[in-house]
Amino acid sequence: MNDKEFILRGVCPDSLGLVAKVSNFLNEHNLFIKESAHYGDPETQKFFMRVKVISPEKNIDKIKFNERFKELAEEISMDWSFEDAILNPKTSIFVSKYSHCLQDLLYRQSVNALKIDLKSVISNHPDLEKIVSDYGIPFHYVEVSKDNKDKAETRMLDILNEDNIDLIILARYMQILSNDFCEKYYGKIINIHHSFLPSFKGAKPYHQAYSKGVKILGATAHYVTGELDEGPIIEQTVDRIDHTKSPEDMEIIGRDIESITLAKAVQYHSEQRVFLNNNKTVIFK
Amino acid sequence: MNDKEFILRGVCPDSLGLVAKVSNFLNEHNLFIKESAHYGDPETQKFFMRVKVISPEKNIDKIKFNERFKELAEEISMDWSFEDAILNPKTSIFVSKYSHCLQDLLYRQSVNALKIDLKSVISNHPDLEKIVSDYGIPFHYVEVSKDNKDKAETRMLDILNEDNIDLIILARYMQILSNDFCEKYYGKIINIHHSFLPSFKGAKPYHQAYSKGVKILGATAHYVTGELDEGPIIEQTVDRIDHTKSPEDMEIIGRDIESITLAKAVQYHSEQRVFLNNNKTVIFK
Amino acid sequence: MNDKEFILRGVCPDSLGLVAKVSNFLNEHNLFIKESAHYGDPETQKFFMRVKVISPEKNIDKIKFNERFKELAEEISMDWSFEDAILNPKTSIFVSKYSHCLQDLLYRQSVNALKIDLKSVISNHPDLEKIVSDYGIPFHYVEVSKDNKDKAETRMLDILNEDNIDLIILARYMQILSNDFCEKYYGKIINIHHSFLPSFKGAKPYHQAYSKGVKILGATAHYVTGELDEGPIIEQTVDRIDHTKSPEDMEIIGRDIESITLAKAVQYHSEQRVFLNNNKTVIFK
Amino acid sequence: MNDKEFILRGVCPDSLGLVAKVSNFLNEHNLFIKESAHYGDPETQKFFMRVKVISPEKNIDKIKFNERFKELAEEISMDWSFEDAILNPKTSIFVSKYSHCLQDLLYRQSVNALKIDLKSVISNHPDLEKIVSDYGIPFHYVEVSKDNKDKAETRMLDILNEDNIDLIILARYMQILSNDFCEKYYGKIINIHHSFLPSFKGAKPYHQAYSKGVKILGATAHYVTGELDEGPIIEQTVDRIDHTKSPEDMEIIGRDIESITLAKAVQYHSEQRVFLNNNKTVIFK
Repeated sequence: MNDKEFILRGVCPDSLGLVAKVSNFLNEHNLFIKESAHYGDPETQKFFMRVKVISPEKNIDKIKFNERFKELAEEISMDWSFEDAILNPKTSIFVSKYSHCLQDLLYRQSVNALKIDLKSVISNHPDLEKIVSDYGIPFHYVEVSKDNKDKAETRMLDILNEDNIDLIILARYMQILSNDFCEKYYGKIINIHHSFLPSFKGAKPYHQAYSKGVKILGATAHYVTGELDEGPIIEQTVDRIDHTKSPEDMEIIGRDIESITLAKAVQYHSEQRVFLNNNKTVIFK
Repeated sequence: MNDKEFILRGVCPDSLGLVAKVSNFLNEHNLFIKESAHYGDPETQKFFMRVKVISPEKNIDKIKFNERFKELAEEISMDWSFEDAILNPKTSIFVSKYSHCLQDLLYRQSVNALKIDLKSVISNHPDLEKIVSDYGIPFHYVEVSKDNKDKAETRMLDILNEDNIDLIILARYMQILSNDFCEKYYGKIINIHHSFLPSFKGAKPYHQAYSKGVKILGATAHYVTGELDEGPIIEQTVDRIDHTKSPEDMEIIGRDIESITLAKAVQYHSEQRVFLNNNKTVIFK
Repeated sequence: MNDKEFILRGVCPDSLGLVAKVSNFLNEHNLFIKESAHYGDPETQKFFMRVKVISPEKNIDKIKFNERFKELAEEISMDWSFEDAILNPKTSIFVSKYSHCLQDLLYRQSVNALKIDLKSVISNHPDLEKIVSDYGIPFHYVEVSKDNKDKAETRMLDILNEDNIDLIILARYMQILSNDFCEKYYGKIINIHHSFLPSFKGAKPYHQAYSKGVKILGATAHYVTGELDEGPIIEQTVDRIDHTKSPEDMEIIGRDIESITLAKAVQYHSEQRVFLNNNKTVIFK
Repeated sequence: MNDKEFILRGVCPDSLGLVAKVSNFLNEHNLFIKESAHYGDPETQKFFMRVKVISPEKNIDKIKFNERFKELAEEISMDWSFEDAILNPKTSIFVSKYSHCLQDLLYRQSVNALKIDLKSVISNHPDLEKIVSDYGIPFHYVEVSKDNKDKAETRMLDILNEDNIDLIILARYMQILSNDFCEKYYGKIINIHHSFLPSFKGAKPYHQAYSKGVKILGATAHYVTGELDEGPIIEQTVDRIDHTKSPEDMEIIGRDIESITLAKAVQYHSEQRVFLNNNKTVIFK
């Protein structure tokens, strides 16, 4: 039955009658609104819309719909998409040596709790190949060194292109991606940083947290831009600690919040709930 | 500027084109949709809608709007209301001897963090009069005993009627209200119960929690029906405890979650976010 | 260095001078107190003690220590143990068809985040064999039906005995164990129940939660007694839900809190932090 | 019965036999250990100890105890105190115009949920006098301007000295105290900062949080040093927000976590649970 559900997403300058115009259009095309959310941001004056519709006819003509909606979209200057409710984005996971986020994502997609179409795992270390292979997912070892950075990225892009990758997840990937790479996949790379950003950017955030004596640990999932540990925040989670915890203890405690935060961010993205709003996000939960 | 914001709420049987019909209507009446939320419950087949609109003209003719919307509402069998966004419901708080929830509500309304028009506090004990008077709110001591229950409720109803009370908050009020009373104010009485319902109904929930050795304490705000500690749940909050806590410690810890849970429930209600859905609630946050 | 750390645990009737007696003893045996926690329960009048000590000599003579401490323990009527700080209890996991808790435990022990010596996984269904085998852990399929319950338990006991199992984890195991079995492993079986006990005991707790319209989901890890979903609570965790969640959604959300709650309970147990105190627990975190 | 409970606190260089020495001493003086906690910090090599004892004799001779313990303390180089378990520190609250933390503290101490002996409220604005007077607490308006800073602090010190103040609570006090003042009351001034430190130091943290698009708000209670919004962290609390929240909404949401965080920090301090450990804290909960 799921093939009959679609999600219409749109962003445009805010103005009078937008909801009426769009819902009229849907009504005229015999699409039933199951769920809808709108938000007008007073700061950027943008209007955000996510509508889940059901088509009572089994096979809606998506091409026709797209053609017709295009006219309305132009009228209201809307960036939009109309996709299957379950989009299953073609996904690649980047990892280095830490396995907890990878393991968690592999498991979730395998039991269909996370609706992604996982095509590949790419790593700059060979260590995690077995975990990945056990799940029947292709593992690509792409060595990255100071001298071969460009070549390595070219190799990665080849792998990504082959599968028409829509989403890249950095699951504790310890290399910095080039600006070109980040721009090419703008809004399509999700990273997990193991601190409550903007606190403790950069290296060794658990050591930073330890030396400050904070009482709460955090993890932040965000879209990747060229800036290190910047980029629109999607999700944050925290856990309580106390004076007895060493940086090593924090790493172990942190694994759980890192995994959960990253999985939630990927879920919101794959359910087409997240919109970019300059350096921030709008998320319809 | 706030006098130009309104909230349209509606509940009706779910069907095709509801959002289009309503948003068209709003559009034709030159009302700008600032925020909207819809939900179709698959279990009860009911459609719930809350729309916040702005009127660009300073003084919308609410009587005319109501007249015209009535026709549409009849067509789609919708229960509805169209009110100022800031409703400031005329409110009475019932208390006994515990002061923490009362104190918290008094303070919040005094700094306008809770938008209620507090008309009276009614108590079956004289103890809390000073707290209430310090805030300039009328305090009514209505003694309740086994023998005078009916008479006491009549007296309370008189006080409530005089102020056209729209909302009654039971802030740790230790008397049981009659079925008649509960029905008269159905969906307009909010109670705080000091447990994570449905656990620990009835008397001394902290003692019950202690004897079970639970590791988390809860508080539940719900609408009041004739059934003791039943009724649609609006909000729940929890806090962590451990083996060192006595029932008395739990009472002190519980004060914070009781106050916060009740305040949140009252806020959701006063912002017209809560809908009754049989024995449950739909809340647009 | 860890081989030089030990944990002394004790429970006895509370009386004057217990801490002094024990710490003198440790001092005389040249054991350095790294961490210690005491608790005297006013209800049961029992004294609980957990002391982590370091031995500056590489090889403490545990047999000698035990001999000598026995005398003191008899004097103060103390039940006690003196074990390596990292005990690595020999563990068996029981499962049925749900894999999330199993998967989580398998991963944690594999990266040494959970210090258990996992000897076997026993299941009344063959479904999860591959997951277990991928980790190199023996998987035993023991069919359980109405008619063969006794025989099945005998078979399980054989498997457990062969490995001298100290800890059984019921990771969503859907069969009820016999009273005899529960008594034999009293204080050594940890179960995860997918509700905030004592709410929603028994079958289908997520459906119960749905029909009550609760706003918070819970999970409870507890020691198993003969009584269904009773037994001393070790850990509870909650997560927030709203009216849009179906029982099926709750199951997916619940997986995370079930896994985390069970893992925490197993960790506390394996770190020798949990004491039984009649139908409750004392836990030194 | 509480007059017979005492708390012995101590900090000293870590070494073998400390617990034994102290517990022997207590035993010899017929003091019953009700609760005790120790911690040896591997980084600073300091040993921290908090022991709650009961004296079976109604009137322990505190002067004698102090005399005798002094010798032991010198032997082990321990900074220590031996005080009534309920210390009721003589307290002054500093405020400016925001009332929520003040209101919360006033209420908690009035119902004895917070065990402080509140002697005065000092403010650089006259606005909050009525709230304070309603509770029967002296209110001192001490104007602070660029030119009279020194004089104003002298006036404050006079007020504090008159009452022998042990604890100063900055409940959203918007003036910076001089280094001299901070040093004079080192470890005795608790401030609430309305962010999750070290994020968003300085002015307008809610505006900073808004512009970063964080998904979680925080509040931090810490001891005050000369450095702005630095100083050992005592407690932190967070709450979830989303894209719909303006800085003004955050301020209202933030009130609750600010009040609770500050109240918890004051409670830990007044219960003698907090130890300074260089720029961090050790807290025995």
